[in-house]
Amino acid sequence: MKATFYHAGCPVCVEAEKVVAEGLDRGRYEVEIVHLGQHKDRVAEAKQAGVKSVPALVIGGAPFHINHGADLSVLEG
Amino acid sequence: MKATFYHAGCPVCVEAEKVVAEGLDRGRYEVEIVHLGQHKDRVAEAKQAGVKSVPALVIGGAPFHINHGADLSVLEG
Repeated sequence: MKATFYHAGCPVCVEAEKVVAEGLDRGRYEVEIVHLGQHKDRVAEAKQAGVKSVPALVIGGAPFHINHGADLSVLEG
Repeated sequence: MKATFYHAGCPVCVEAEKVVAEGLDRGRYEVEIVHLGQHKDRVAEAKQAGVKSVPALVIGGAPFHINHGADLSVLEG
């Protein structure tokens, strides 16, 4: 099944990419990672799949928005 | 690495469990699925990890909240 991870290079996106998108079983999913900031021509496709914010994962056509809770390190920075 | 998927049995939770939690590479993650409605004694642990809503995935101690965009089928139902 196709799994597309859309992101925009933000710290939350990178973290989600590292642990969620790259953590998907490659035996089950064909994973593609798309940086919408660098590939603006694919924003329309993401919106059509129901993506409203990034990072998001579209699996089998269904959108899953991923929100990382704020880390204390963000508050400390 | 430990990955804990917290949910409460809602349709969105079940869908996220099916495609995201069960889609994680078992060679990389030790996945545990916790139904907080049935195991209320584990709510405190989830909150401590930063979980604010379900479904959520805690990977390596970091919380990722998953929100499924509304399906048209929900509106049709």
